[in-house]
Amino acid sequence: MTEERFQVIYHISGAEAVALEKAQIICLEQTVEVGQELVPDGFIKEHIVGRLEQFYSVASDCYAAILSYAVETTAGELTQLLNVIFGNTSIKPGIRVQRLILGEKLLAQFGGPRFGITGLRQRVGITTKPLLCTALKPMGKSVTELAGLAYQFALGGVDIIKDDHGLTNQPFCPFTARVNACSEAIHQANRQTGKHCIYVPNITAPCHQLRERAIYAQEKGAGALLIAPGLTGFDSLRALAADEAIRLPLISHPAFLGTMVTHSSNGLAHGVLFGQLQRLIGADAVIYPNYGGRFGFTREECRAIADSCREPMGNYPPIFPMPGGGMRLEKLPDLLNEYGNEVVLLVGGALYTRSPDIVDNGRYILSLVGR
Amino acid sequence: MTEERFQVIYHISGAEAVALEKAQIICLEQTVEVGQELVPDGFIKEHIVGRLEQFYSVASDCYAAILSYAVETTAGELTQLLNVIFGNTSIKPGIRVQRLILGEKLLAQFGGPRFGITGLRQRVGITTKPLLCTALKPMGKSVTELAGLAYQFALGGVDIIKDDHGLTNQPFCPFTARVNACSEAIHQANRQTGKHCIYVPNITAPCHQLRERAIYAQEKGAGALLIAPGLTGFDSLRALAADEAIRLPLISHPAFLGTMVTHSSNGLAHGVLFGQLQRLIGADAVIYPNYGGRFGFTREECRAIADSCREPMGNYPPIFPMPGGGMRLEKLPDLLNEYGNEVVLLVGGALYTRSPDIVDNGRYILSLVGR
Repeated sequence: MTEERFQVIYHISGAEAVALEKAQIICLEQTVEVGQELVPDGFIKEHIVGRLEQFYSVASDCYAAILSYAVETTAGELTQLLNVIFGNTSIKPGIRVQRLILGEKLLAQFGGPRFGITGLRQRVGITTKPLLCTALKPMGKSVTELAGLAYQFALGGVDIIKDDHGLTNQPFCPFTARVNACSEAIHQANRQTGKHCIYVPNITAPCHQLRERAIYAQEKGAGALLIAPGLTGFDSLRALAADEAIRLPLISHPAFLGTMVTHSSNGLAHGVLFGQLQRLIGADAVIYPNYGGRFGFTREECRAIADSCREPMGNYPPIFPMPGGGMRLEKLPDLLNEYGNEVVLLVGGALYTRSPDIVDNGRYILSLVGR
Repeated sequence: MTEERFQVIYHISGAEAVALEKAQIICLEQTVEVGQELVPDGFIKEHIVGRLEQFYSVASDCYAAILSYAVETTAGELTQLLNVIFGNTSIKPGIRVQRLILGEKLLAQFGGPRFGITGLRQRVGITTKPLLCTALKPMGKSVTELAGLAYQFALGGVDIIKDDHGLTNQPFCPFTARVNACSEAIHQANRQTGKHCIYVPNITAPCHQLRERAIYAQEKGAGALLIAPGLTGFDSLRALAADEAIRLPLISHPAFLGTMVTHSSNGLAHGVLFGQLQRLIGADAVIYPNYGGRFGFTREECRAIADSCREPMGNYPPIFPMPGGGMRLEKLPDLLNEYGNEVVLLVGGALYTRSPDIVDNGRYILSLVGR
């Protein structure tokens, strides 16, 4: 047993004495899962049980508890690391994971992102300024219609063209046919423009098909892969990022994960779920709903996500925050001011509706971001 | 395109006009993900977009919306079914999935539970009365110590002896060594007692190791498998239940899932998460924290879980509700009254602490449930 430990900062609701008792119970619940009276002296009490390292007030009736856990309790497994961080405690209301401090050695046990901001920029051949992304939709359009849209978006200069995350392998739009057609359409546009627009198919799928779709998409010229870890499990994304046969950046979608953040005193903080955990599992860019759109995230929550994507984290590269969800063009100046240059703007409606000329819409929006 | 549709009942918080608008937006958000003005006439508007079938008040400032979706939008994939049910809408506070009405054909696309109550009873050779389960713990004990505990629990008549869900493959308690020792200890006890106590190792693991651990455990004589789908992804449990090489019942653990239920106006209803979804993915028994224990579930929430485990659901067999989490012996009469006979009681502390004689503790608790 080494002495190596990692830390989790929990925010706990309640009066001081109540919150302190909850913090002490987390130490047991997340490790030995027995009452204090059943913890054997020695190794288990000294090493295995979580340790309350610091406890302090952060707001009225809200306290921060910094706990440390032995790295060896996680067995080098992402699944068990998640379990130690929040397994049973997720079931208790009024406790939120506010921040992870995992340490270099624990981070090094996982590969982290392989491309990050720099790698994704190399793929699209754009070294500065924000990147522009859009989604192929709506569900129900045929493969031919979606490929036609992809072609026009690529001609207009959109850097990243992804499937809507609801497009998987429906009978009216099969995965392989869509990948073939959209990838070819975008390559054709690239040959005309000289640009390096990439197609990002959605490979979110049952576990036995995930790798197969990733490999297929790669062979057909996809430039990155879209996956929703809330649907597949976090470890599925990690496994793709660790797979040497797959050499494409991974873009993470938030579907089904929302409940983890929607109530401010439960679940995971925005920066943990959409920043720290995503980098831990190897995402190179993270989609999340921007403030002021049709979802309810605040500017501060979005800033926490963007900061967690881009701040130092072991030897992991920074990754792209990718705000989307009801972006309006008149908000672009504010967005650029908020996020700076290291951001992918996920624009849907405006690219479709600003004018009937989709190619021109793309060019216009690029001009708004200084490109 | 067939006309087959499935239904989801959402509970939506807010004044009537607000809730109605939210319901109409769910129809779009969960399918086409564009505004009404961008939905093409014909096939997409008529078939793909969710349909608001009913809308009615269920409480002050809370409305039920019954939506239907075309079965084909789910592509026969569990991951995409979860996405249509709650993908993006999970990110919006004030909307809860209250109930699924999936229909026989959609249910038949997934295998469902293979053993259920009857199959699990056959394994342990107990045809009536509640079953008794306990967990091997705490984390940090050696393989030899855990096997010693398993032996005594089995001698005392405990039907199901599972790993604590935090035991995976730690260096101080490796998976294979633990499975070998605990399985052998329980078989030895069974030879002495003539009973059929089963060992249930925790196979929760990174995705590339999950099946390997399941197969190993089966070969070494495990009687069922424990897995936490909140850690591995729901589809991982489904894949095990659909795997013909694995012929063991699956017991589901709630780790990391709690936030999905902790706030009553977000996430999934208890009966959906711990009942309907578990059967859909093929769990044969579902662990959840009982009312009155150290977690906060109410009696009504637990009843909804037990009902959803045992009520008719397509051709799926009923499965065992498995309440645990701080059970005290004085509560047993009430528990038996609440759950009836078709239940597995997960008892931890009381089996360890009632007296120093663990074998006798098991026999005593069995006598309390009429066995």
